[in-house]
Amino acid sequence: MTRRIRLGMVGGGNDAFIGGVHRIAARLDDRYELVAGALSATPEKARASGAALGLDPARSYDDFTAMAKREARLKDGIEAVAVVTPNHVHYAAAREFLKRGIHVICDKPLTATLADARKLVKAVERADALFVLTHNYTGYPMVRQARDMVARGALGRIRVIQVEYPQDWLTTAMEREGLKQAEWRTDPERSGAGGCVGDIGTHAYNLAGFVTGLRAESLAADLQSFVEGRRLDDNAHVMLRYADGARGLLWSSQVAPGNENALRLRVYGEAGGLEWAQEDPNLLWHTPHGEPKRLLTRGGAGFTETTGARIPPGHPEGYLEGFANIYAQAADLIEAHREGAAPDHLLPTVHDGLDGVRFVDACVRSSKRDAAWVSLR
Amino acid sequence: MTRRIRLGMVGGGNDAFIGGVHRIAARLDDRYELVAGALSATPEKARASGAALGLDPARSYDDFTAMAKREARLKDGIEAVAVVTPNHVHYAAAREFLKRGIHVICDKPLTATLADARKLVKAVERADALFVLTHNYTGYPMVRQARDMVARGALGRIRVIQVEYPQDWLTTAMEREGLKQAEWRTDPERSGAGGCVGDIGTHAYNLAGFVTGLRAESLAADLQSFVEGRRLDDNAHVMLRYADGARGLLWSSQVAPGNENALRLRVYGEAGGLEWAQEDPNLLWHTPHGEPKRLLTRGGAGFTETTGARIPPGHPEGYLEGFANIYAQAADLIEAHREGAAPDHLLPTVHDGLDGVRFVDACVRSSKRDAAWVSLR
Amino acid sequence: MTRRIRLGMVGGGNDAFIGGVHRIAARLDDRYELVAGALSATPEKARASGAALGLDPARSYDDFTAMAKREARLKDGIEAVAVVTPNHVHYAAAREFLKRGIHVICDKPLTATLADARKLVKAVERADALFVLTHNYTGYPMVRQARDMVARGALGRIRVIQVEYPQDWLTTAMEREGLKQAEWRTDPERSGAGGCVGDIGTHAYNLAGFVTGLRAESLAADLQSFVEGRRLDDNAHVMLRYADGARGLLWSSQVAPGNENALRLRVYGEAGGLEWAQEDPNLLWHTPHGEPKRLLTRGGAGFTETTGARIPPGHPEGYLEGFANIYAQAADLIEAHREGAAPDHLLPTVHDGLDGVRFVDACVRSSKRDAAWVSLR
Amino acid sequence: MTRRIRLGMVGGGNDAFIGGVHRIAARLDDRYELVAGALSATPEKARASGAALGLDPARSYDDFTAMAKREARLKDGIEAVAVVTPNHVHYAAAREFLKRGIHVICDKPLTATLADARKLVKAVERADALFVLTHNYTGYPMVRQARDMVARGALGRIRVIQVEYPQDWLTTAMEREGLKQAEWRTDPERSGAGGCVGDIGTHAYNLAGFVTGLRAESLAADLQSFVEGRRLDDNAHVMLRYADGARGLLWSSQVAPGNENALRLRVYGEAGGLEWAQEDPNLLWHTPHGEPKRLLTRGGAGFTETTGARIPPGHPEGYLEGFANIYAQAADLIEAHREGAAPDHLLPTVHDGLDGVRFVDACVRSSKRDAAWVSLR
Repeated sequence: MTRRIRLGMVGGGNDAFIGGVHRIAARLDDRYELVAGALSATPEKARASGAALGLDPARSYDDFTAMAKREARLKDGIEAVAVVTPNHVHYAAAREFLKRGIHVICDKPLTATLADARKLVKAVERADALFVLTHNYTGYPMVRQARDMVARGALGRIRVIQVEYPQDWLTTAMEREGLKQAEWRTDPERSGAGGCVGDIGTHAYNLAGFVTGLRAESLAADLQSFVEGRRLDDNAHVMLRYADGARGLLWSSQVAPGNENALRLRVYGEAGGLEWAQEDPNLLWHTPHGEPKRLLTRGGAGFTETTGARIPPGHPEGYLEGFANIYAQAADLIEAHREGAAPDHLLPTVHDGLDGVRFVDACVRSSKRDAAWVSLR
Repeated sequence: MTRRIRLGMVGGGNDAFIGGVHRIAARLDDRYELVAGALSATPEKARASGAALGLDPARSYDDFTAMAKREARLKDGIEAVAVVTPNHVHYAAAREFLKRGIHVICDKPLTATLADARKLVKAVERADALFVLTHNYTGYPMVRQARDMVARGALGRIRVIQVEYPQDWLTTAMEREGLKQAEWRTDPERSGAGGCVGDIGTHAYNLAGFVTGLRAESLAADLQSFVEGRRLDDNAHVMLRYADGARGLLWSSQVAPGNENALRLRVYGEAGGLEWAQEDPNLLWHTPHGEPKRLLTRGGAGFTETTGARIPPGHPEGYLEGFANIYAQAADLIEAHREGAAPDHLLPTVHDGLDGVRFVDACVRSSKRDAAWVSLR
Repeated sequence: MTRRIRLGMVGGGNDAFIGGVHRIAARLDDRYELVAGALSATPEKARASGAALGLDPARSYDDFTAMAKREARLKDGIEAVAVVTPNHVHYAAAREFLKRGIHVICDKPLTATLADARKLVKAVERADALFVLTHNYTGYPMVRQARDMVARGALGRIRVIQVEYPQDWLTTAMEREGLKQAEWRTDPERSGAGGCVGDIGTHAYNLAGFVTGLRAESLAADLQSFVEGRRLDDNAHVMLRYADGARGLLWSSQVAPGNENALRLRVYGEAGGLEWAQEDPNLLWHTPHGEPKRLLTRGGAGFTETTGARIPPGHPEGYLEGFANIYAQAADLIEAHREGAAPDHLLPTVHDGLDGVRFVDACVRSSKRDAAWVSLR
Repeated sequence: MTRRIRLGMVGGGNDAFIGGVHRIAARLDDRYELVAGALSATPEKARASGAALGLDPARSYDDFTAMAKREARLKDGIEAVAVVTPNHVHYAAAREFLKRGIHVICDKPLTATLADARKLVKAVERADALFVLTHNYTGYPMVRQARDMVARGALGRIRVIQVEYPQDWLTTAMEREGLKQAEWRTDPERSGAGGCVGDIGTHAYNLAGFVTGLRAESLAADLQSFVEGRRLDDNAHVMLRYADGARGLLWSSQVAPGNENALRLRVYGEAGGLEWAQEDPNLLWHTPHGEPKRLLTRGGAGFTETTGARIPPGHPEGYLEGFANIYAQAADLIEAHREGAAPDHLLPTVHDGLDGVRFVDACVRSSKRDAAWVSLR
């Protein structure tokens, strides 16, 4: 039997986005159990969020330092902590856990400032604990596949890297309309000196490096704040020079209408090219130079990765969520049933099932009779 | 705090596919807790599978009848059971739980025979328990969106329904090469009279009905077994006549090379058309007649559904799995660390994080100096 | 220097669509010169249209019989004639030219009735002149490529053929709003017994046969007129049984909103699959079973055809060029005929046309008999 | 009846590519008649090429100056000439015809050097003849549609322009394998200082300006020759600053495997975004900010352009037709000029050509200075 790792969380309170994502991700393969949290910088919200998640109140903390100290002393204290706060808190939070030997899984970007980042590197080096940064796009099976193909020489020596990450949600001044996600991301105090270049440009930059295995050596950047009054960049154009002579172009934007989350990487070498797009993550295009383009799919022919084997090819990662929607709504129904209620619902019923079996039966009968029409009534 | 429902499972042992999917789906939103199982018809395998999942050995049963009886008597016995066996077992298993007031979440198709299906309908009608069939494709947010749009009249009166579900994994006689998934699906004893028409044609049929709200009244079918020696159909062509004059065409196939799991629905009415494809499940095409085609996305503009709000638009359902890969591999690393090992890994490290922060810092500095080249070393 | 063939035209007056297309196609490769015409059944319109095209007034005729007689006697009379009238005129017009040794390039479907089609076949057999039917989709380079690949065994024995041709321009009763194109296409007197099945279903049917090299042996058809008051079918569902055990499904529709001209063919055999879509005509998907999908492009790697070499890969070629391929190859044939040669060719013949009319006739008969199977032999 | 304009051609001999394209384009709408040519710098090849095209031997010239002189004196001499030579000949050839009042339709880029470009501008200004540059991509209907939408304010104020033009045909040293097309394009003597930036980067640059109506004011460029021994750039990364604060990124490459001719433009403004790709030229994506993406098609709903009406929506139109649109509209202009009129038009002018050459010159200068910003004013 697989053991569950005891996990804590810093940040990720009720109205956060990425904290919930971390929790689902931790649960998906049943390898973690969330047992403690300092879920908000506001004590009341921290407690309410802990209660909503079913944490033992004694382990729902008001601040992460208290949490780190106490959990480190508990016999069954947390073994790992997920740090999912705004960027400027990452270093301080991570440090507290690392120095007590608690593993840290931290959201990106690492920190809000370069100074903090360097301190965090030292803290990790000193610690008897692991530090994992959730550059989550490196977790996609086809991204791993791409990296592996480059490493095995499928593209030959790399020449050109095109990476882009456009979004459109900050096309207008959402930060002045009370959207918390927009507020801290456009605030230099909490995000650091980079706006969209820090928030998503770092993903693009990391992805290019992850897949190609190349280090950038210098860059020339043209950052811009298009929305009036915005204090950080919302569009970034960057030319990159990589080790070994490769050249790159990076575009990140949060003011590009029609782009939801359009991270995309294209890599070209002497012997071929690769293309991957986050919004179609189960696909990877590979063109060996002089041959037809090939479309690799997660789990399909030519796929050599081992990551992401939960479901077969053609079942987009997305299939599980569709299934989960059925389960979640069945849970609602079950709870309603406990209380004697029978709400309307969209879930398939036994009659839908009967209908299906009747359909099969009719198909077989019709086909046996030379495709005669058969009633379904 | 959200309560977890106590769940049991029938079928879904170690080498099954759909059982694992059900478990992940149940876990995704943290609404269920798996506490009991009769995971295989082979007692040894049932026990081994239960152990692998961390079930209490006392609640890992050799057969589902024993499980139903005992769990019904336990104070904290299961409240619901997932039935994920081959088709011919569905009825018998479901019956045992239903009659003891335990809710049943059952995989499709409902049963292997029409006679069993009718008995199961009666069993559900008699029971003080819910029955949910996992026609999982109806759980996709854009499918719900499509249904809602049809119901609200966006297409006007429906005229034509095109639904297809091609796969290619049975192009050759996989059932004779030891593939268990292929064996029972091509065996009339376990699958019933329909082969691919039962296995996946029922999904297509159900999807068409779910989205349009129309009932099929008659059909003409041409089923074929292309692979020599195969006892059930592996390709089905069906013409359908729906209530209210609509006409449909249904194609399901498991011998169509290049199709992994290509369920696709197109619906056309007097006032417009809709298209949805399972392999691109976050998208829905809508054409109001005489206007440009529009591309709706899960959570994007024009999306009116409430299902599937776990992650924002542009983050394909698939995003969570990418994240989960990071978590799962971090768990491996943490376990290795416990044992003093430090295996190679692909997870982002603190140095990747430093790199990202350095990138942001360099971008900001370069941009301030009129996009001068800035070293990244 | 390449000689220009002297061409005449019957039909194709000022407000016609397909006549202009034929003229551009004839001009594209500079192999023809339009020198005579009977461009409309209405003498005034015939003359005005001839003037607009710069025809010598003496060679702008009021009716095709006069044209055939006089041109046949002229020393530099036309060598070939394009017949681009509504369907019911095809036979009578073609006959006049064929019997005088003038080659005929005729639009599809061959004729409005099966009786006419059979007579036209005889007229061709008796004539010392060529007859080419412009099933223009067979002129697309990637369609030729597909045919060639099937012939060379890339798919193995063919099992399943999916062909569809949906449009949306007749979703409402355009024939009652003065649209000439809609009027004659929905009028049994001018179109024959098939509506959309004749107008575009024949293209789909022809394309499937062209690419696979298989003959359909029987069909069961369900035709429908969805628009109130329409006298011919506007949606057709057809199940097909091909020689050698292959099965097909054909859908043609003119009431499917969101589909402009969406002819699409998919062919699956024991060893692989092919997909082609008219709206993306420069691409051809090929999946050898068990390998990644490959995207072949016109002129790109893996392209073995010689048709369509006017422009390089990546420079999209379209509908006009497909048409022009037919004309250019007809020019080759005409020149060969002058020299007494009769080379092999891929151009649609009168027999292909007969086949199409027989298909429409069978569809109508099957549909009238509740979609009973009807032989095509 | 529409009169045919008497056309001559300089360049475009037997083994040229673009000359043949110009001829087809001129023929497509039957507005021109090719009557004279100086088809090659090699007299023998000039004559053979003229013969192959059926030119009167007396009007198949050995050099363009002789042609200009004699044709200007003929009563039915050419009215217009197409200049389709390598870049370094454009100026000298155009000058000879312009000064004799013969209209010039010239391939791009305008010239090989900035000095020549300026002289050509003066020659045009002095001449009583028209000059049209075949920036053929501006002839695509959906490009015109995009330009029109931007002009009408559909995107609001423009912020970001992403334009790219990758190809892969020079991934290896084709210029050393006897490919004539590759030889002159990689030879500074014949192409000028820009390699891929001149050959295709100018198309991308022109397209961005055409659609947005914005002028670039400065740029910073990083050009690279990846193939060993190549004397001109084969990959170009350019950051652009446009008037009115818009920012752009331009990538052109001829070493990007998997890209045939992948010109693509994306424009984002305060109120929406547009996307167009040359390889799918009949489509245009439009996203009004906050609404679903819409797919506009040539001739389809929402299409307001008048260009490209030869064939209906869904019948794909391609590269040749885009070229032909330039020629047809040049014919209109020439006819208007005959009548003393000078109507507004969208055709590329000598100033567009100067702009392109200035762009190449600026790219080369910027790149030599380590991608310093260089003014374009």
